[in-house]
Amino acid sequence: MKILIKNCIIVPMTGEDYFKGSIGIEDSKIVMVTKDEKEIDNFQIDESISVIDADGKIAMPGLINTHTHASMTLMRGFSDDMQLMDWLVNKIWPIEAKLTEDDIYWGAKLSIIEMLKSGTTTYSDMYWNLKANAKVVEDTGIRSYFGITTMDACIDNVCENIDNNFKEYNNSCNGRFRLMIAPHAPYTCSPDTLTKSVDIAKKYSLILHTHLSETTGEIEDIKAKYGVNPIEYYEQNGVFELPVIAAHCVAVSDDDILKLKKYNVSVAHNPISNMKLASGVAPVAKMIEMGLNVSIGTDGASSNNNLDMFEELRTATLLQKLITSDPTALKAYDALYMATVAGAKALGREDELGQIKEGMIADIILIDSNEPHLNPLHNVIASLVYSGKGSDVTDVIIDGNILLRDRKFVNIDVKECLEQVSNIAVRLRN
Amino acid sequence: MKILIKNCIIVPMTGEDYFKGSIGIEDSKIVMVTKDEKEIDNFQIDESISVIDADGKIAMPGLINTHTHASMTLMRGFSDDMQLMDWLVNKIWPIEAKLTEDDIYWGAKLSIIEMLKSGTTTYSDMYWNLKANAKVVEDTGIRSYFGITTMDACIDNVCENIDNNFKEYNNSCNGRFRLMIAPHAPYTCSPDTLTKSVDIAKKYSLILHTHLSETTGEIEDIKAKYGVNPIEYYEQNGVFELPVIAAHCVAVSDDDILKLKKYNVSVAHNPISNMKLASGVAPVAKMIEMGLNVSIGTDGASSNNNLDMFEELRTATLLQKLITSDPTALKAYDALYMATVAGAKALGREDELGQIKEGMIADIILIDSNEPHLNPLHNVIASLVYSGKGSDVTDVIIDGNILLRDRKFVNIDVKECLEQVSNIAVRLRN
Repeated sequence: MKILIKNCIIVPMTGEDYFKGSIGIEDSKIVMVTKDEKEIDNFQIDESISVIDADGKIAMPGLINTHTHASMTLMRGFSDDMQLMDWLVNKIWPIEAKLTEDDIYWGAKLSIIEMLKSGTTTYSDMYWNLKANAKVVEDTGIRSYFGITTMDACIDNVCENIDNNFKEYNNSCNGRFRLMIAPHAPYTCSPDTLTKSVDIAKKYSLILHTHLSETTGEIEDIKAKYGVNPIEYYEQNGVFELPVIAAHCVAVSDDDILKLKKYNVSVAHNPISNMKLASGVAPVAKMIEMGLNVSIGTDGASSNNNLDMFEELRTATLLQKLITSDPTALKAYDALYMATVAGAKALGREDELGQIKEGMIADIILIDSNEPHLNPLHNVIASLVYSGKGSDVTDVIIDGNILLRDRKFVNIDVKECLEQVSNIAVRLRN
Repeated sequence: MKILIKNCIIVPMTGEDYFKGSIGIEDSKIVMVTKDEKEIDNFQIDESISVIDADGKIAMPGLINTHTHASMTLMRGFSDDMQLMDWLVNKIWPIEAKLTEDDIYWGAKLSIIEMLKSGTTTYSDMYWNLKANAKVVEDTGIRSYFGITTMDACIDNVCENIDNNFKEYNNSCNGRFRLMIAPHAPYTCSPDTLTKSVDIAKKYSLILHTHLSETTGEIEDIKAKYGVNPIEYYEQNGVFELPVIAAHCVAVSDDDILKLKKYNVSVAHNPISNMKLASGVAPVAKMIEMGLNVSIGTDGASSNNNLDMFEELRTATLLQKLITSDPTALKAYDALYMATVAGAKALGREDELGQIKEGMIADIILIDSNEPHLNPLHNVIASLVYSGKGSDVTDVIIDGNILLRDRKFVNIDVKECLEQVSNIAVRLRN
């Protein structure tokens, strides 16, 4: 199958500036990125081609959300304005205990609908129930890295099933569903759980996805328990011997950053969740300056409370300007880089994802440049970063398939999902 | 003319919780807010009535943006990631010097289109050119308070023309266009300019709209020049003897807040602009606790860079949680209050604007509760504040007139405006 995206402004995120051109897609790959009319005509000869007239649109790589808990949309708005532990222990955990496989499927589907509509093409998840999550990725067409959560309470169960699960699910959905192993956090994983998680990651070549140094309280707790800080605790238990996506990293010193750099740990920055839970601000500008790969995540919808990566990346740059007292900190392009290229790097896929370039996988979004708030279009990057919204996204292509066309889903029944989720929500509240 | 908004979730902002009901409008006023089917039937008998079937919609008071510079959309994205004075002196002011009356009209129109689409029904402006601004308010149907800017360079001109301008423009557009006097800032207004501005405000009973204590640099400068801080400087020159909307108030001490409270000064909080320019965070939670009326502004689009009040009010609550290290700070309802009731109070119109209540002016917006990111609808207030977006707004009624219906403007030609602004932008850049 071939797709031609014709006459748009292309933001390639390759380092090259944006330009007017066209994009050719064949099967799952980008095979042409060109300004040359003749090349377009040659490509267009194929009769089976889908042509998207994208005049007035901006094409950019699909956004990569490197840290979320998709099914937690079910708890969106259920409890807000609360202290973290009160919220978790008295509100979130009791609800999570009630979740069925079906609930997890519909919660994840609602997230995916929201993510696709707002331009996210890949997300990195941490939750439970592989079956429901693989099915929803199959059904929707999105790209997902699913982190199988490990904690002391469930590590043995994970170890027992990993071989079968790996065979059945990893690289399924035409390669769009891949596994990670997700030791939940320093405060829920003993050294034994960490070691076993690391062993699994080594055996199956999986990325580790974890929460790390989210709050100063976590540091105090881990120091009291193990005599070292959370980063040292992970280091001691071999976590950093593998590729790691560490979500949050709010409470980190310069020495901590150097350590993360030494092991090439990727940070998933979650600015809005960190504000909402009053955790603080990760020193992202400094991390990047010190050479860390920092990508962006939304965290779960119950601590955000939406999954709009445009809002997230804008908040990231605004927060760095604020905490450094420097309006030149984390410039527009750098924020967009975090949400695309850095996300691909975090997943070890920088050769395939996060850029519009010949040979890359065709995960592309189109944005309506005629939205009033993007005008006048003095500078496309500035407009996207400082004014752009998820609702500006009109078309989404993943793996060479058109999932959203002119703001309408090709294959997903949104109404059915909203009804299902609404019923589940009533049941969960009671 | 009568309008019936039928079967929606009403968020009245009167202190009462949200409920399912219907709203009746006659001419410019809300005449019915009811859950009673019979009352609806009686109201509906009139044949000339417009009925909006609002099942699945949320009705709330139109948002009130208490500090912006509407025409500055022309400079949106023109220069970002710069130091404040470098940005102003080398980028913004040279462009502003080129602006014609026509430019100001189209820039303001673009802002108004963006504001209406995202649910703002009233804005409080500070700029130049009364004629262009009155015309654009007449042409679009929005409600505006226009602050005539005074600085040392233009105060005499303002004084000379105020009598004619007051007669011609104040309370024009069926009362939707009203004047304020806007001494620009402590650093651009000498005691003489301030005194003359205050005299005008007294003579014509106008609100004063000003920038105040935006940065620590401003405090140092004013102290060096006058020996007192900006708030004391205003106090000494009689500014606080009248109703005042003071934008920013980022750099304020507890004593400053007490002083602002003593004079009943309303603060217009501009969280995103203050982040983007690295000015800091106004201590809003503390201000409210100490009894100040704090409303919300977006500032101009060139330092924001959009005018979405949903994003602004969300950022306001997230920032207070962050700076107080308390996730319970500035709760959802309080943020929504700032953007509605507190805005009306700042304009001295709390008896007419900012709430859905019988007798109030019909400035109402409808929101599509079926947007994925608002679901499940565990709590309508939380969904609006923590997940809501300007793009969720489907209908806008101002002064009893429907301006936006199902996301389409009834009377405004958006395409024409985008073309005009695009041409102006090219000219301004060259």
